[in-house]
Amino acid sequence: MELYVWRIVGVLVFTVCLGFAREVKRYTPDWESLDSRPLPAWFDEAKFGVFLHWGVFSVPSFGSEWFWWHWQGEKQHAYVDFMNRNYPPGFTYADFAPQFTAEFFDPDSWADLFQAAGAKYVVLTTKHHEGFTNWGSNVSWNWNSMDTGPHRDLVGDLGAAIRKRNLYYGVYHSMLEWFNPLYVQDKSSGFKTQNFVFGKTLPELVDLVQRYKPDLIWSDGDWEGPAEYWHSREFLAWLYNDSPIKDKVVVNDRWCNNCSCHHGGYYNCADKYKPGTLPDHKWEMCTSIDPYSWGYRRNMRVSDLMDVPSILKELVQTVCFGGNYLLNVGPTKDGMIAPIFQERLLDVGRWLKVNGEAIYGSKPWRVQMDNSTGIIW
Amino acid sequence: MELYVWRIVGVLVFTVCLGFAREVKRYTPDWESLDSRPLPAWFDEAKFGVFLHWGVFSVPSFGSEWFWWHWQGEKQHAYVDFMNRNYPPGFTYADFAPQFTAEFFDPDSWADLFQAAGAKYVVLTTKHHEGFTNWGSNVSWNWNSMDTGPHRDLVGDLGAAIRKRNLYYGVYHSMLEWFNPLYVQDKSSGFKTQNFVFGKTLPELVDLVQRYKPDLIWSDGDWEGPAEYWHSREFLAWLYNDSPIKDKVVVNDRWCNNCSCHHGGYYNCADKYKPGTLPDHKWEMCTSIDPYSWGYRRNMRVSDLMDVPSILKELVQTVCFGGNYLLNVGPTKDGMIAPIFQERLLDVGRWLKVNGEAIYGSKPWRVQMDNSTGIIW
Amino acid sequence: MELYVWRIVGVLVFTVCLGFAREVKRYTPDWESLDSRPLPAWFDEAKFGVFLHWGVFSVPSFGSEWFWWHWQGEKQHAYVDFMNRNYPPGFTYADFAPQFTAEFFDPDSWADLFQAAGAKYVVLTTKHHEGFTNWGSNVSWNWNSMDTGPHRDLVGDLGAAIRKRNLYYGVYHSMLEWFNPLYVQDKSSGFKTQNFVFGKTLPELVDLVQRYKPDLIWSDGDWEGPAEYWHSREFLAWLYNDSPIKDKVVVNDRWCNNCSCHHGGYYNCADKYKPGTLPDHKWEMCTSIDPYSWGYRRNMRVSDLMDVPSILKELVQTVCFGGNYLLNVGPTKDGMIAPIFQERLLDVGRWLKVNGEAIYGSKPWRVQMDNSTGIIW
Amino acid sequence: MELYVWRIVGVLVFTVCLGFAREVKRYTPDWESLDSRPLPAWFDEAKFGVFLHWGVFSVPSFGSEWFWWHWQGEKQHAYVDFMNRNYPPGFTYADFAPQFTAEFFDPDSWADLFQAAGAKYVVLTTKHHEGFTNWGSNVSWNWNSMDTGPHRDLVGDLGAAIRKRNLYYGVYHSMLEWFNPLYVQDKSSGFKTQNFVFGKTLPELVDLVQRYKPDLIWSDGDWEGPAEYWHSREFLAWLYNDSPIKDKVVVNDRWCNNCSCHHGGYYNCADKYKPGTLPDHKWEMCTSIDPYSWGYRRNMRVSDLMDVPSILKELVQTVCFGGNYLLNVGPTKDGMIAPIFQERLLDVGRWLKVNGEAIYGSKPWRVQMDNSTGIIW
Repeated sequence: MELYVWRIVGVLVFTVCLGFAREVKRYTPDWESLDSRPLPAWFDEAKFGVFLHWGVFSVPSFGSEWFWWHWQGEKQHAYVDFMNRNYPPGFTYADFAPQFTAEFFDPDSWADLFQAAGAKYVVLTTKHHEGFTNWGSNVSWNWNSMDTGPHRDLVGDLGAAIRKRNLYYGVYHSMLEWFNPLYVQDKSSGFKTQNFVFGKTLPELVDLVQRYKPDLIWSDGDWEGPAEYWHSREFLAWLYNDSPIKDKVVVNDRWCNNCSCHHGGYYNCADKYKPGTLPDHKWEMCTSIDPYSWGYRRNMRVSDLMDVPSILKELVQTVCFGGNYLLNVGPTKDGMIAPIFQERLLDVGRWLKVNGEAIYGSKPWRVQMDNSTGIIW
Repeated sequence: MELYVWRIVGVLVFTVCLGFAREVKRYTPDWESLDSRPLPAWFDEAKFGVFLHWGVFSVPSFGSEWFWWHWQGEKQHAYVDFMNRNYPPGFTYADFAPQFTAEFFDPDSWADLFQAAGAKYVVLTTKHHEGFTNWGSNVSWNWNSMDTGPHRDLVGDLGAAIRKRNLYYGVYHSMLEWFNPLYVQDKSSGFKTQNFVFGKTLPELVDLVQRYKPDLIWSDGDWEGPAEYWHSREFLAWLYNDSPIKDKVVVNDRWCNNCSCHHGGYYNCADKYKPGTLPDHKWEMCTSIDPYSWGYRRNMRVSDLMDVPSILKELVQTVCFGGNYLLNVGPTKDGMIAPIFQERLLDVGRWLKVNGEAIYGSKPWRVQMDNSTGIIW
Repeated sequence: MELYVWRIVGVLVFTVCLGFAREVKRYTPDWESLDSRPLPAWFDEAKFGVFLHWGVFSVPSFGSEWFWWHWQGEKQHAYVDFMNRNYPPGFTYADFAPQFTAEFFDPDSWADLFQAAGAKYVVLTTKHHEGFTNWGSNVSWNWNSMDTGPHRDLVGDLGAAIRKRNLYYGVYHSMLEWFNPLYVQDKSSGFKTQNFVFGKTLPELVDLVQRYKPDLIWSDGDWEGPAEYWHSREFLAWLYNDSPIKDKVVVNDRWCNNCSCHHGGYYNCADKYKPGTLPDHKWEMCTSIDPYSWGYRRNMRVSDLMDVPSILKELVQTVCFGGNYLLNVGPTKDGMIAPIFQERLLDVGRWLKVNGEAIYGSKPWRVQMDNSTGIIW
Repeated sequence: MELYVWRIVGVLVFTVCLGFAREVKRYTPDWESLDSRPLPAWFDEAKFGVFLHWGVFSVPSFGSEWFWWHWQGEKQHAYVDFMNRNYPPGFTYADFAPQFTAEFFDPDSWADLFQAAGAKYVVLTTKHHEGFTNWGSNVSWNWNSMDTGPHRDLVGDLGAAIRKRNLYYGVYHSMLEWFNPLYVQDKSSGFKTQNFVFGKTLPELVDLVQRYKPDLIWSDGDWEGPAEYWHSREFLAWLYNDSPIKDKVVVNDRWCNNCSCHHGGYYNCADKYKPGTLPDHKWEMCTSIDPYSWGYRRNMRVSDLMDVPSILKELVQTVCFGGNYLLNVGPTKDGMIAPIFQERLLDVGRWLKVNGEAIYGSKPWRVQMDNSTGIIW
């Protein structure tokens, strides 16, 4: 009994939704129409945001947030060895989840910190490639932050604190899930079946939109499948036409295997992307204070990390080139932002307090660098 | 974006399947046709089977296999108190799973034991109402015995050992899952939506059939929803017509809210059902050596348990009335059958070695009890 | 800075104690005097007792209560392998202690069981060769049942329940501790230093006597050192002359490397000792329902265990030869007596209810076996 | 049977030792003689050291290294509440020990860091008031870093790395142990008995000296008992006359309840002591980057911490007044120095690289502050 007919479902759903739409300009589920949507103004004015990678990977807290993949997908020696040395034989990634305790998670103090850092928006991994949802997703039973680990709605609790301070709230969401059997099957079918998309990805994207009404959807994990598989154009059409956040929501460009730098909302292009000339499309540079990892690493050293001058240089450069700067820190499994990250963020905040006028709401000048007189932006 | 259209899917699937069927007498998905199927002969001849309740409930191993429901569904004092006394605040049922270790699970010694007990078939809970699957179900990601806990295919490993000894292998499967959000939603819709059925129950039933080719499907957890909701008639039609086990498979009667004692294969009617007169339909009495629980209770006392005479009396009585006798033991979380259960089973086996001729393959006489001369069966 | 002068201490202590003694017949610390003490009458009348081996070894609950020694002393493959398969590298025996939870330990139901078994005395391992004390010993800090694991005075709580039922209460106590560094040092000095004896063994023996006023001290672990080392004669002189239990206390014969079967109170001689002819000294046979272990083994099988006829045969034989019969069961780490052990004990109790008259308070006849007419005792 | 005679033991031991002494100036066990010993020159030249508080308190890592006392000694609400919220009922301090894992502990990288910080000596808590020894003490069985937790000789491993870099190595050692029953008993006897001193404190001090040959003994936890109780003068006489480190070893002033600021080697006086005028006795100021705790706190915030200017100001001021500056960081339970502490230390190191000439080996000028021209040291 194959369940391949699920593929049809999505189309029906969206068709039905479209049928009830109101009489304004509506987007059609094709890139030409979707790409024509103007970017809500708040995003370009915000300039600086904080990115948070938090999940079950924060428990081993070793290597990077790609721990699971490096360990069991690629079987990299360092990861296999780390497990052999520290855990009983047979220990699985799922067995880490009860240790994701978050007992010190105080959303208000996080939000205070991000505000003091001068960030205007905050983006949290609501679900990384591991598939664990940081909220009580109905389609991620016993693999979410309510059912195990924190026993708490991390997405909702942080969102409330962020909004109280009039910051914008973005949800990072990974389309793919490395080891989800439904995804693995769809992938091995050459993305002909879509059980995963209709059983997990789409319901969760919709749930995120409806529950948390985010200002930004930071899509990721799109690169393996085509837009037809992800059903992304249909989702975006619904998001722009009929969702409760249709007017304010901003999205990035990771919606299919050749979307990046070409379609969607603003562009991320690659991680840590730096354009050589002024792009003609709004973009965002995301980077991490720990260049080796987006998730927290218990064994990071200060010499691994970006210092304040490097951060500020990148921030200024990015803004000069018309980009937003999204700076990442990885919280600990017990719910803290490590003091070194607090310090970096507060130092940026102190600088922005003085120089913010030249950043927030600025427009890039026609010249980005004047090399004749040394490096000035 | 509602996913209610999934309901349609199942119908399509079965229609498609039917399209490819071979040219023999085929069952149609209605009770009249399904109920007309003759029961494969092995079942009536087997007479005596062993039932096994094993799952995450074997970790708290307290109260009964309904632990989760008594604790968090009903909030019974004894269960709430047990948790308060022994676990940190916020500990969830999912947090038990990594402790379901099964390190001593030796399927061959289990199978030897059941054979020595004189059992002709063995039925294992492949998934109880908790929803945790004792095999690597694709639609129960991180809530199954491969991804966490035993890290092992319990259903497959036991099956192989059972088959090696020419015993029949049955799979207990619960239709409902108390706390599965998809089920909870379907239920609160008055069983109008079927996301749970098509996303979990049916794929898992089909997976069990295709992977393990069981001789018996012991359905349970059917009582809340109608046959339309469970899609049980369509499943049975597929099972009888097109599945790889269509000729040998036996099923019971728990397929919908008014199926029990009326439809399906043989009848269980209620748990521990004892008919007063000779039934005209093949039936099975299931009972548990521990009358308080089907799952293992760490704190059971020998005085709680059935003794050998009671077991033998029930066995004989059941067989006299044309029934099969399915006697339950709950394995421990580390994979042992408690010695007291071993002893009971072996004592039954010793009795059957002598008296088995009058049991296996027997047919009930026209009179079940001759009260004139005391109690004789 | 050597602490070898501690050796002198004990002698001084006992001298001081002797100085305050009352004007009755006093025992001197030599075997001739000590062995002349009449055995308190209750012991010979009791005939049947229950032995309990409970400790940190009940956590791995694998192999036997000698787990630690087999694993790290002898490095037996089965034990090393068990650890490698189930625990992280580097896991130590001490790391087991927090899992010795005893959450179901109900001393009254234990005592009821032993009484129903017909036992007249109960002997608990207050400290086995592992050195972990089942009470809050002051000289076993953080290695006792108050500071970690059960967080409970096991010796005291069981004692209270035993006394409530007018049974006699015995304390098993191991002189040696395999891995206690003080013992290891004393031993490697050829038992010239006595830091261990005066720092651990003697204070604990005295503490047991003063706190719990046991009816019986079941000494063990004596075989490596001479009486001079253990200071046993001085301890026994104090016990017989000045301790609060001097009139009623019974001791066995394990007080030095050549004491067994020669000195002390009644004789155990070897474990499971069976004399061929009627001994002229009161003795006790200790044995275990699980012949492979005195501690609980999670993976024991019923076929490993003594059945009721074997137990009764041994009991009768022992009593015929003038011995007491001390039958061992190993409680689980969560504080239960396994149902199979409950059953064995209760079966013995049922037999004693009928035949107890011929057991309790009986005196051996001049002939133990009449082989001419088959085996009769 | 009281063991009070142990008190005598020590005196005998030291007498014996003195008997074998060589023909040089010998110190007698009185303060006049002991205080007359010249301070080894290396200490005054060193000026700057790093202090490390590491132990089982690094597991809860909450509040401070006085966690146990605040929780169970004083029952402070914040600590009781922390335990109630995060651990099962009955969880003890000893139960934390297996979680003191130290898996990332790399002594060489620690030592590199301290060297780069410009520290000339490093002082590690070999045993804090909790009594847990960071080496395999023979008199702290199963309550030390070999038997549980790290399974590693922390004192030895760090020492080797420190020595490789020609830094001096100091051992912090607490005389008292809050909850050690031997100590509690001695204390309640008004320090008349000395079982604790001769059974734990003295053997461990001697063991530290003989095994690790430290350059500095940083005594603490002395304040409740008199010198007679601690036997400190006898210990110091042995240390100065006959120990393997008699020529180089430096000690502080915490050796009895009225020793601080009066006797011993250099003076610490109070924690974080700052003299108003130039002291006439060598002294050391110890302080912690985290002013709220000497042990690591998982929930510390950067705003809690000393910043670099404050540290440098204190360092300079201390040196001007003739003191040494011992700056504390608390490692994590997994064996890391938190990046924020790394950063602080490295910043101090960078400053010392430039200004070290005016620090190391400097002598205080006759004037410490010239207030006429603002604050200059």
